[in-house]
Amino acid sequence: MTDEHSVKGNRLDPWLDNYATRAHGLRASETRSLFAVASRPEVVSLAGGMPNLKDLPLDRLAESTARMIRKDGGRALQYGNGQGLPRLREQIPDVMALEGIDADPEDIIITTGSQQAVDIVAELFIDPGDVILAEGPTYVGSLSIFATYQADVQQIEMDADGVIPDALEEAILRLEREGRRIKLFYCLPNFHNPAGATLSEERRRTVVDICHRHHILIVEDNPYGLLGFDGQTYTALKTLAPDDVVYLGSFSKIFAPGYRVGWAVAPPAVREKMKLASEAAILCPSSVGQYSISMYLEGFDWKHQIEEFRGMYHDRCDAMISALNEYMSMCTWNVPSGGFYVWVGLPDGLDAKDMLPRAVTNLVAYVSGTAFYPGGSAGHDHMRLSFCYPEPVEIHEGIRRLSDVITHDLELIDLFGPSYSRPTEGVSTPAPDQI
Amino acid sequence: MTDEHSVKGNRLDPWLDNYATRAHGLRASETRSLFAVASRPEVVSLAGGMPNLKDLPLDRLAESTARMIRKDGGRALQYGNGQGLPRLREQIPDVMALEGIDADPEDIIITTGSQQAVDIVAELFIDPGDVILAEGPTYVGSLSIFATYQADVQQIEMDADGVIPDALEEAILRLEREGRRIKLFYCLPNFHNPAGATLSEERRRTVVDICHRHHILIVEDNPYGLLGFDGQTYTALKTLAPDDVVYLGSFSKIFAPGYRVGWAVAPPAVREKMKLASEAAILCPSSVGQYSISMYLEGFDWKHQIEEFRGMYHDRCDAMISALNEYMSMCTWNVPSGGFYVWVGLPDGLDAKDMLPRAVTNLVAYVSGTAFYPGGSAGHDHMRLSFCYPEPVEIHEGIRRLSDVITHDLELIDLFGPSYSRPTEGVSTPAPDQI
Repeated sequence: MTDEHSVKGNRLDPWLDNYATRAHGLRASETRSLFAVASRPEVVSLAGGMPNLKDLPLDRLAESTARMIRKDGGRALQYGNGQGLPRLREQIPDVMALEGIDADPEDIIITTGSQQAVDIVAELFIDPGDVILAEGPTYVGSLSIFATYQADVQQIEMDADGVIPDALEEAILRLEREGRRIKLFYCLPNFHNPAGATLSEERRRTVVDICHRHHILIVEDNPYGLLGFDGQTYTALKTLAPDDVVYLGSFSKIFAPGYRVGWAVAPPAVREKMKLASEAAILCPSSVGQYSISMYLEGFDWKHQIEEFRGMYHDRCDAMISALNEYMSMCTWNVPSGGFYVWVGLPDGLDAKDMLPRAVTNLVAYVSGTAFYPGGSAGHDHMRLSFCYPEPVEIHEGIRRLSDVITHDLELIDLFGPSYSRPTEGVSTPAPDQI
Repeated sequence: MTDEHSVKGNRLDPWLDNYATRAHGLRASETRSLFAVASRPEVVSLAGGMPNLKDLPLDRLAESTARMIRKDGGRALQYGNGQGLPRLREQIPDVMALEGIDADPEDIIITTGSQQAVDIVAELFIDPGDVILAEGPTYVGSLSIFATYQADVQQIEMDADGVIPDALEEAILRLEREGRRIKLFYCLPNFHNPAGATLSEERRRTVVDICHRHHILIVEDNPYGLLGFDGQTYTALKTLAPDDVVYLGSFSKIFAPGYRVGWAVAPPAVREKMKLASEAAILCPSSVGQYSISMYLEGFDWKHQIEEFRGMYHDRCDAMISALNEYMSMCTWNVPSGGFYVWVGLPDGLDAKDMLPRAVTNLVAYVSGTAFYPGGSAGHDHMRLSFCYPEPVEIHEGIRRLSDVITHDLELIDLFGPSYSRPTEGVSTPAPDQI
């Protein structure tokens, strides 16, 4: 009787030879331990995308939750419907109506955050090697999912008005000539994470038309759409082309992420498959979470709460832009009209990923632009600054500290030449807790 | 400018040609709409696996939850750690200790029900065509997941003492000769769903030894382990071979499923990959759910609650066995010593799947044995009866109604011959709401 165990795998991981191909692409993403970095009280974190919850009425939420458990506990603590709580699916169209989107409760699937919705869509559509089109840069959490499904993410250039339609169509034509299977265009049209930009109304129509002509399904990821600083909203791609769009919404930014409740609205046949895929993965979303959100939508003035959130984030964004003007004239940035993020361009020769350990040493954190490109293949010259969580006075101090780090790095370049010229294509990104 | 859209897909689903290969295997499983069937008040459902929650102290839970939200709301409503709430990971070993399992909080990953843990393990290990060994029959929810990852599920025969070790080793040797890649042995050792059987202590050692010699990772799924009617527990496979087992636990059956909180304990390298895969899929499990479970474990006499659950399920099982003795002498069954299920063998010639519409018409529901074999390839001669949810008096009435249906089907066979001889290999199973 031989012990085959001892000759397979290695000492660190005896199961190394047993993993699926997709598992070898799993790496710690750059957001992975941002929570850990951000939680050190002495660090000003401009890194995480955590919403600010301190204005939520915790006492009233506590009382209402207790009432809900007394009244509906038997159902709220039980397994639920795989597609989501019917009552909540009837309420979600009221939230979407604020952006002028018309949704049928039957076409809504409730998910464990909209992250799970991205995961399900990728699971349903992506065979290894299939192409996903995405903005460049794009949301790091979706890049992790796309890597899991071994997608080839092709990023399309953006400017201040969002993704550039000509660049989108050129990429599609090139990929079609190469015989590639383009499955999805993953798009964050509103207050983009990380770029802060919003897709112009004119471009929305063009983008939808391009994707329709090439029969490419659009995944419209819209967690920030109700957080325009002046209450402004934009025409949803879903509204322009209901049959061509899987729309993703989330309560994480307009209420609270701890319930992990998001949703998708999909064309009927896709919605049916998404429901089956979600049931396979988790049986059903949390009943307690869904009853809690439903209770909140019914018993609280949630529209007013969103207005308060808008005002608060507007103030914080103003604090960040004002501090950037005061301290960071060596950089470039956009001025967002909503959402959580400013996308900052570094002076020539600086490398956001290289600089991060020095920034943390100087008690300020950000996310390197490399996190928003697959394998860190680009974005060295940018960083994402979040204004959502810290107080305005902390934002000011954080930017001041960051300007010191940049100034110091620029002095080093003057002395020793640029650090920003190494080959980076395909290199994976280390987790921030390695610094 | 041609409209390519119109020539692709079909009218029912324009995206039909765009799905990934794995999506074509997604079918409605037989459990899918059991909730809908079970929820009609006039039907006695012996079908669903919903735990009975009416003995939970809802008033005290409501008060404690309110206190938790007032005190910890800022964190409970926020994003959390991808691996799970550290405090809860420190409490889970106390639960596992009741079964004599020694677990390190560092090796625990909290998941959206243990269903998500099965999903992650399959994602990490299964390339299309890889073999998963499982008991025959096995848990339908895991079969759905394994189908999604295009696994070849090879089922091993069971008897009253659980899976038969000789059959397991024979299957492994045969598959190895065929050059197949065997990745996992998925095993429910305690109060099996659906078979009701428990793996004997002697066989546990043999099974672990066989898998170790053939370097096959064991997935030990244990939602019912603390629900032995006499408080008896068994040696976990995890205890026998910590490095060879991914252990899955759940709060769904010993507390409440509505929080969707389960957990996995895995060897360190596997645990690290599971954490990354879970973060990619959902960012983090529900903070509210985890804080609620943590509060329950800290503030409530949960061990006593488990004892009460045991007594209640014992009474219901007794009611079912007594009714089976009274009405169903034409059938065979095991007498489980814990858990939720009795696995009933039908008389020759009867087909559990064919009979189900007639049973529902007669106001009783069960799950056809076919649900527990991939593609319904076997199990026509069995049905799973659950005693967890209905009251003893309902169980008695349900079995009476079922015996009428069986008696009637037997009369039809006498008249017209057996219905149970059609080819069924590979045929997919319709959802119960199609009946």
